[in-house]
Amino acid sequence: MRCDVLCIGTELLLGQITDTNSAWIGEQLALAGIDSYEHRHVGDNLGRMVDAIEDMLVGADALIICGGLGPTPDDVTREAIAKVMGTELERRDDLVEWIRALFGERGRDMPANNLRQADVPRGGEPIPNSVGTAPGLKCMVGDKIVYAIPGVPYEMRLMMSEHILPDLLRRAGQQGAIVSRTLKTWGASESGLAEMIADRVEAQTNPTIAFLARGIEGISVRITAKADTDEEARALIEPEERALRDVLGDLVFGVDHETMETVVLELLRARGWTLAVAESITGGLVSARLVSVPGTSEVLKGSVVSYMTDVKQSLLGVTAEKVVSAECAREMAEGVRKLTGADVALSVTGVAGPEPQDDQPVGTVFFGLALPDRDVEAVGTRLPGQREQVRQFATISLLNLLRMALLRG
Amino acid sequence: MRCDVLCIGTELLLGQITDTNSAWIGEQLALAGIDSYEHRHVGDNLGRMVDAIEDMLVGADALIICGGLGPTPDDVTREAIAKVMGTELERRDDLVEWIRALFGERGRDMPANNLRQADVPRGGEPIPNSVGTAPGLKCMVGDKIVYAIPGVPYEMRLMMSEHILPDLLRRAGQQGAIVSRTLKTWGASESGLAEMIADRVEAQTNPTIAFLARGIEGISVRITAKADTDEEARALIEPEERALRDVLGDLVFGVDHETMETVVLELLRARGWTLAVAESITGGLVSARLVSVPGTSEVLKGSVVSYMTDVKQSLLGVTAEKVVSAECAREMAEGVRKLTGADVALSVTGVAGPEPQDDQPVGTVFFGLALPDRDVEAVGTRLPGQREQVRQFATISLLNLLRMALLRG
Repeated sequence: MRCDVLCIGTELLLGQITDTNSAWIGEQLALAGIDSYEHRHVGDNLGRMVDAIEDMLVGADALIICGGLGPTPDDVTREAIAKVMGTELERRDDLVEWIRALFGERGRDMPANNLRQADVPRGGEPIPNSVGTAPGLKCMVGDKIVYAIPGVPYEMRLMMSEHILPDLLRRAGQQGAIVSRTLKTWGASESGLAEMIADRVEAQTNPTIAFLARGIEGISVRITAKADTDEEARALIEPEERALRDVLGDLVFGVDHETMETVVLELLRARGWTLAVAESITGGLVSARLVSVPGTSEVLKGSVVSYMTDVKQSLLGVTAEKVVSAECAREMAEGVRKLTGADVALSVTGVAGPEPQDDQPVGTVFFGLALPDRDVEAVGTRLPGQREQVRQFATISLLNLLRMALLRG
Repeated sequence: MRCDVLCIGTELLLGQITDTNSAWIGEQLALAGIDSYEHRHVGDNLGRMVDAIEDMLVGADALIICGGLGPTPDDVTREAIAKVMGTELERRDDLVEWIRALFGERGRDMPANNLRQADVPRGGEPIPNSVGTAPGLKCMVGDKIVYAIPGVPYEMRLMMSEHILPDLLRRAGQQGAIVSRTLKTWGASESGLAEMIADRVEAQTNPTIAFLARGIEGISVRITAKADTDEEARALIEPEERALRDVLGDLVFGVDHETMETVVLELLRARGWTLAVAESITGGLVSARLVSVPGTSEVLKGSVVSYMTDVKQSLLGVTAEKVVSAECAREMAEGVRKLTGADVALSVTGVAGPEPQDDQPVGTVFFGLALPDRDVEAVGTRLPGQREQVRQFATISLLNLLRMALLRG
């Protein structure tokens, strides 16, 4: 089964929008074991869309058309598919009612333009849209299948997952359910990680194991299983996940949608501990990441960005001569804990560049960690990259340091 | 003149990489007044590449092929172009020497694989690469022109700007230089801005004026001029920029690569003033944006992220009953100025959601501003969007508030 992708939109060709949809669709197709050999972008132009659809259906068994389903006259995906099918558009009363009801729920009248979204090529079927007004389309062109989905990423993803991927798998005569589980790791290199689990990766065909390097979010290991049902697929994943976790240990900081910050906040919440942070090199990034999680206000007391040395001294009580030092990191953590009355305190100081500081090269970082009833610890390290990367790596490394300490008990 | 774009890479189809190159190339072509009607992705497969090139050259006058010029055997763009031209690859001694010298400069031996990068289809020309080992290619296929450029964004952009765009313009019989200047604005809606300068936009053909909505970075107005030389193009831009600035006034916060944070830091530096920030809803984002600029340590004393109410009280001396209030914003600014000894202080408090707070709906924000020898000011507003967007809008709005105050004197 080969399924190619056609994205519609003049704004894509003009570079006003970067297409992230085709990459996402390509990843889902690959996960499902469906080949995808060509992705195209064309503008909102009926003639060129018809040409592209006809041309792409020569080589592909299935085609996903993304975009051009909106209510305005330049949205002509419906017309293009009808033309390729050699048929007309029919206005479907059930869709008119459904769209009108949607506007009603939002307390608004339906603009006449939106009626166009109730049009379906004769012989085609609408695909329900659970979050927007544009139904998708599913149409046969000879023995080939054409799907049309909205270009809005959120709507596109739901429609792909709920309708199109299952339908494609059925047509491909494949098993009906594909389930993935992603183990997120921090602290090992990609090659180091690969070596640790090389024998497991080679031994597996279902589930399969893939590496995804996510830069400052670490490296993910994705387990993907196919089976008749979601339940059976999950049953295939479970022992593989256990085996991988046995090898990877606490390099794994979370799964699927978890992030380093949600995991750390959860560990603190479980103990009923509050947190404070003293940031120098990261300038507020650690706090900003924590605050991005709803409900942080039960855990995070606050933080101090002590950027100038005199603020480190006056506010945090730092006496260390060199601000890029383990001593300074320790004093910053102690200082911010005292200042805020938090149970746990983190600190980070270092050299982001472009120039060295305190005789230390760019990338030198010291972390401080104050836990209840413990001496304050400090850890030094050397991070790769330039200014922005150093600051981002320092942020997640500091949170990981706290995670490891909380796991140790 | 129509120039289409073909991006090469199996990793693009698999969604392991998102293609940002074709959007950038599309934007440059549009700026240059060259039509671009189709962008395609195909994998590292010789047969499919040849088919795509032949097919795309039916409609286009020129084709830019991006990627597949690396040293490994799966990089077959050179072979594909030779095949479409009906010719062979020739190894060019001058390119071999050039690549060998590059490795020599870096103190490394040239791997034998890299010799492949010295291959050029007979009749084609190499395009110099000033930053990498892969030369580009410029080849005629009948009366059509095919360019090949590396997929590494930095190398691709340099080669596009230095060689391909000027060459395309010459072929299109257009003038040789295109210069743009971008005025960055904050504080007006896109439709509001469009109305303000509608008559100027309509009156212009060279330079042209375009709007670019940049979300949390505001709306940019781009002036683009074509002329025989850069100097003449700049001379066309200058009076247009003056006229636009007359209308837009201090909505314009910067030009080209300037950002809100570089502009604000520069205004403070010019006065010799230091800054401190008290952040609640933004959780460190304001500080983090400022610290992303090298040299901030001369201006930013530090900041306090007072996330919990007791920290607002104990550290910043807040007495206001409601923390989402003008009074609280004023006290936070005063408090952080006193605490750090900074000349200027900013503060922000508000409701990011998901739940309302202090009877105030999500998006309610209060800013505080303390300037030397002035009463502390507070300003309330209502920002659109959900949690993350509210926090980002609050960040740039607060910096803009300071900018406006510093401009007023």
